[in-house]
Amino acid sequence: RSHSIAVLPGDGVGPEVTSAALAVLDAAQERHGFTTTRTDVPLGAEHYLATGELLEDEAVEQLRGHDAILFGAIGSPAVAPGILERGIILALRGAMRQAINLRPVRLYPGVPTPISGLTPERCDLVIVRENTEGAYVAQGSTVHRGTPAQVAVQESVNTWYAVERAVDFAFRLASERRGRLTLCHKTNVLVEAGRLWTAVMEEVGSRFPDVETDYVHVDAMCMHLPVSPERFDVVVTDNLFGDIVTDLGAVLQGGLGVAASGNLNLDGAAPSMFEPIHGSAPDIAGRGWANPAGACLSLAMMLGHLGEGEAAAAVESATAAVLGELPALAGAGMGASTQELGDRVAALVREG
Amino acid sequence: RSHSIAVLPGDGVGPEVTSAALAVLDAAQERHGFTTTRTDVPLGAEHYLATGELLEDEAVEQLRGHDAILFGAIGSPAVAPGILERGIILALRGAMRQAINLRPVRLYPGVPTPISGLTPERCDLVIVRENTEGAYVAQGSTVHRGTPAQVAVQESVNTWYAVERAVDFAFRLASERRGRLTLCHKTNVLVEAGRLWTAVMEEVGSRFPDVETDYVHVDAMCMHLPVSPERFDVVVTDNLFGDIVTDLGAVLQGGLGVAASGNLNLDGAAPSMFEPIHGSAPDIAGRGWANPAGACLSLAMMLGHLGEGEAAAAVESATAAVLGELPALAGAGMGASTQELGDRVAALVREG
Ligand SMILES: CC(C)[C@H](C(=O)O)[C@@H](O)C(=O)O
Ligand SMILES: CC(C)[C@H](C(=O)O)[C@@H](O)C(=O)O
Repeated sequence: RSHSIAVLPGDGVGPEVTSAALAVLDAAQERHGFTTTRTDVPLGAEHYLATGELLEDEAVEQLRGHDAILFGAIGSPAVAPGILERGIILALRGAMRQAINLRPVRLYPGVPTPISGLTPERCDLVIVRENTEGAYVAQGSTVHRGTPAQVAVQESVNTWYAVERAVDFAFRLASERRGRLTLCHKTNVLVEAGRLWTAVMEEVGSRFPDVETDYVHVDAMCMHLPVSPERFDVVVTDNLFGDIVTDLGAVLQGGLGVAASGNLNLDGAAPSMFEPIHGSAPDIAGRGWANPAGACLSLAMMLGHLGEGEAAAAVESATAAVLGELPALAGAGMGASTQELGDRVAALVREG
Repeated sequence: RSHSIAVLPGDGVGPEVTSAALAVLDAAQERHGFTTTRTDVPLGAEHYLATGELLEDEAVEQLRGHDAILFGAIGSPAVAPGILERGIILALRGAMRQAINLRPVRLYPGVPTPISGLTPERCDLVIVRENTEGAYVAQGSTVHRGTPAQVAVQESVNTWYAVERAVDFAFRLASERRGRLTLCHKTNVLVEAGRLWTAVMEEVGSRFPDVETDYVHVDAMCMHLPVSPERFDVVVTDNLFGDIVTDLGAVLQGGLGVAASGNLNLDGAAPSMFEPIHGSAPDIAGRGWANPAGACLSLAMMLGHLGEGEAAAAVESATAAVLGELPALAGAGMGASTQELGDRVAALVREG
């Protein structure tokens, strides 16, 4: 079996964690008997500053030919905020029709969490974030700019098409897990969008009679998630609320360094993309201080997506094992460099 | 000194916590030598179900004549979700031009917090939430309802006028506190609204050269707030993000039962309104299980607002003292009823 992977290391700590993850991929290939071809795609701040290019049609075509995209991180203090995020990350999610942003919130044994008394048994949920629209259409209008009469209208666009796709995915996932799906929204205030989400939940739900459904306002979610994550199995939510609650989810898991995500294309016409939830973290770039766990767990998600289920499970459990050792190792910071930790995960994968 | 207070106990646990807070107000009056006249205003589910009225012009006129509104909680499972919230709570905030929703996030000594290692010294910030617009205009449009072509557009309206009013308030508050103001938004995606908020921060900031400013995305805020609240002094944010991050703030403080808020009118044409952050909690209503601390701390904010600074400080510290005793008292639940706890706070206020 061979898989073609586009590798997009990006900026800041992106290349560091990606390089650690690739060492793990090498090990997984050896141990589990598959191969990959890898194309490095140099998108990011450096490329943008040198060429003025964000995501050109050519790059889209090139990426589209791959089975999956392994993504590091994008963002740089040298570029105005938002340019690279919208121009590359969000543009990729759109161009590749990555309908779903899948974000597991799982606390692995031995990983220190800031929530007192939280145990791994109580923290195992998945957040399904709609990944193509809502407020992320980034559309709106401004009148009277620069005057005291200025008004900015920001729009959130919600289509039945995209919401149903996300909700259907979430129901399927819930029916393979503990059979519980929670809609997270703010239907009491966002009435138009709220009615659509609620109607879709009902319609799709009628096809999944065995999945129990529930509704939690996004504000209440921020209250419940830290103290009773065991209430949740699968949570489905819109793009903006998903952005917000998954960062909170990452806190439970032990920090952004640990959290993984998959931007899933569901129509097969373009590859899915796997990225750690953390950003480029320019403040610590170049020091080997970044935790490669998020990148390794994203790699595990990618392997699962490519049909390499055994390798996926092996990478996940090796990463969890190394994460569980971190507090013991830790002197200053993690007590080991990004690459050393990647190598340690790779060694465990090789040992099997 | 006499102050006219409109009392709006509302639904569920609202009347219970309000009654506890009024016992504390009695004590504060005795001890600190002022009087109040109180008008009970029966808005809420019961009134709505009996009369079909939410917030009539008459009630608005009646409320407008008071110096302040003490609010319990509104919401009932007997009424469709959103009706009472929009029809009463949000309608009141609008009708009374309560420009700011002020939400202190303060951990009092001895109060158990779910964040491990968090200390009161590290958790003392104030969130200034714009309270009149943004997504809370609850406007938008839907086409093709009930078909697979349905599209719902939800709008967030942001005026220079209202944003400047909130930001100016936040700068003033920061300059009286530790001199640090953080804007919380999602400017990299919500570009139209983001540009307006950013421009207002810059323009108003030029009048407060001694206040240090900072910017944090709302997703990153959910990551930083639980683990490093000491980063923040005053946070200013829009209506929707404010709704979300203040519930997370309440978690740090020991739960919704502890958190207080003030809906502040700044133009003097109508009263401000003080409400605990928790809702009507119909599941525990009638049992005396609700924590009255949020209502008592809201009362303290009201007293400060009415110019009764000594009484405000006394009520706050008495409430904090009783809160600090709770874990010791606690058998099942709080170990004391809502009213008993209110009486205990009242007794401390009376002792001085
Ligand atoms: C970088 C940014 C545009 C992005 C988002 O808002 O989706 C990030 O926060 C994420 O969650 O992947
Ligand atoms: C009840 C609801 C409309 C309200 C809001 O969203 O503002 C509440 O959550 C709050 O924060 O006061």
